[in-house]
Amino acid sequence: MSEVKRGYVRPLDIRHGRIDLSHGSGGRAMAQLIEELFAAAFDNEFLRQGNDGATLPVPAGGRLVMAADAHVVSPLFFPGGDIGCLSVHGTINDVAVMGAKPLWLSASFILEEGFPLADLKRIVESMASAAKDAGVPIVTGDTKVVEQGKGDGVFITTTGVGVVPDGRELSGDRARPGDAILVSGTLGDHGMAIMAERESLGFSAPIESDTAALHGLIEALLASGADVRVLRDPTRGGLATTLNEIARQSKVGMMLQEKSLPVNPEVAAACEFLGLDPLYVANEGKLVVIVAPEDAEQALAALRAHPLGARAAAVGTVHEDPHHFVQMTTAFGGKRIVDWLTGEQLPRIC
Amino acid sequence: MSEVKRGYVRPLDIRHGRIDLSHGSGGRAMAQLIEELFAAAFDNEFLRQGNDGATLPVPAGGRLVMAADAHVVSPLFFPGGDIGCLSVHGTINDVAVMGAKPLWLSASFILEEGFPLADLKRIVESMASAAKDAGVPIVTGDTKVVEQGKGDGVFITTTGVGVVPDGRELSGDRARPGDAILVSGTLGDHGMAIMAERESLGFSAPIESDTAALHGLIEALLASGADVRVLRDPTRGGLATTLNEIARQSKVGMMLQEKSLPVNPEVAAACEFLGLDPLYVANEGKLVVIVAPEDAEQALAALRAHPLGARAAAVGTVHEDPHHFVQMTTAFGGKRIVDWLTGEQLPRIC
Repeated sequence: MSEVKRGYVRPLDIRHGRIDLSHGSGGRAMAQLIEELFAAAFDNEFLRQGNDGATLPVPAGGRLVMAADAHVVSPLFFPGGDIGCLSVHGTINDVAVMGAKPLWLSASFILEEGFPLADLKRIVESMASAAKDAGVPIVTGDTKVVEQGKGDGVFITTTGVGVVPDGRELSGDRARPGDAILVSGTLGDHGMAIMAERESLGFSAPIESDTAALHGLIEALLASGADVRVLRDPTRGGLATTLNEIARQSKVGMMLQEKSLPVNPEVAAACEFLGLDPLYVANEGKLVVIVAPEDAEQALAALRAHPLGARAAAVGTVHEDPHHFVQMTTAFGGKRIVDWLTGEQLPRIC
Repeated sequence: MSEVKRGYVRPLDIRHGRIDLSHGSGGRAMAQLIEELFAAAFDNEFLRQGNDGATLPVPAGGRLVMAADAHVVSPLFFPGGDIGCLSVHGTINDVAVMGAKPLWLSASFILEEGFPLADLKRIVESMASAAKDAGVPIVTGDTKVVEQGKGDGVFITTTGVGVVPDGRELSGDRARPGDAILVSGTLGDHGMAIMAERESLGFSAPIESDTAALHGLIEALLASGADVRVLRDPTRGGLATTLNEIARQSKVGMMLQEKSLPVNPEVAAACEFLGLDPLYVANEGKLVVIVAPEDAEQALAALRAHPLGARAAAVGTVHEDPHHFVQMTTAFGGKRIVDWLTGEQLPRIC
């Protein structure tokens, strides 16, 4: 993003203006949009370099982590958040679950012609605020515009880079029989916030998305000294899909206890109403932790001591299983297979 | 991208299949798409880690560079390339013009429901081939699907990370009065290839896009020892817009010589037919070089010795100008201002 000063151009009319194709042309209108909206909100020393990319210091030691997420959530605004903060949290979390300290983000926007500048400003300010709160600056980016009917308001793709300290090994293939499975809080809040908004369910208290940056919670967990094997954020496909991925990667089976799964009552009610299972509903501020059995209590205590982990719970255990099944002991004492998500339950949830 | 082996699922029907919403759900269909299409084509040691992000070695010394590009080009396939190779070249070039060796790419896909898998495969293979030729692996990514009519086939956002050796300083604010302005070849090929395809101009020989990765050309140029001040790839908005950006950042004026500007005759003819100026038309495999006057010949020779710089030319000079104007001595000996691109000349060119 390049900074351009043109005192003789009228400032953007944020209140009434709309995105048009010239905002993606590479010319004067694009420079103005970048300067007055993006650069103003995201301002930091790297973005201020004003080149096609950002120059950044090489971390001293460790390994780099790189993760990317496209965000196409619909609606763009929902109780508890919007596509802006979600696009910051989502990628920070993908970097953080690798055990890395997130350092920088890139942000690319695909805007639809006719999109109100006021909405874009609200989204950009939400991103800026999320990035600032997380201490992870947006250092470079891009803006494209597509014709009306060829996009849907705004899509935001973020890529994050972070650094893992030497000696820290977290990976989806490290779960071992006997390990405990923890979750950092209630399941399904994000997905049901979106669905309730989309279906205009109109509960008396709206369900709020749990969208949050998890790197602080993860640092607190790892600082406890617990032998954490795997961290994941159970987004699309929910806890069920995330555990199936880990079971497959680690070549193990898992057994969940249904009665241990934390679910907010209003989420449970909305799921029942819509015929959905909270195990498959997306979270955007929750952590799955696979931890050595002897350290489970210690890990749980560390999670619960952090504001984002107050409702953390031990929800199951890892065992040997040549089929790599995830199963669940139901509230009635029976057993069932918790399979991969099949088909499309909740499109455009993130 | 996680690798999943499921022998009991039928392989994707690439020939007749289409993207549906389940391919973006986070569940089994998405895992299959990633495994059979993306992971198979992009295969490398980092992607094979199978986690939410890639773990990468920290470069020894230098500074990191990070650059991002969203690609929304229409049509998706055009003479000389497609959105796949373009999305690799575009971001590699943004990293390389900072003087950096490009190391890794992330790739995020926003797919429209109903998009043919055969077209997606062609695009993914073009990306894979471009990444392999450039020696820059795609190490992580994401896939989202939007409903029919809410996207346009496929949008691809890539982010690149590279490393600049210590002591190498290239930036848009380093042009100085007296410096020479070089371009590495003919102007406007990419933009006119897209426009000719879109307008079905049907020239006897189709205009081919110049899409190419420029890091090899840049290394050859810098290895010549010439004191290069600024490098840029003149994409959206063309040479005119890129030079205006540099003039503004460096607080200088520039004078171009119209008769020195290399333009392919068929591009010149198509521009004339459509009322476009090649100075404002996008390039995707060309370099603007601002170089110390005493090193201009040496830099030009280095560019011309490389296959991508065979038609390199000196096209103007930098001078003092408190207004930071870019001007041009026309073929008829007059002078005109070469202003920023205003309005939208060529939507969705990249």
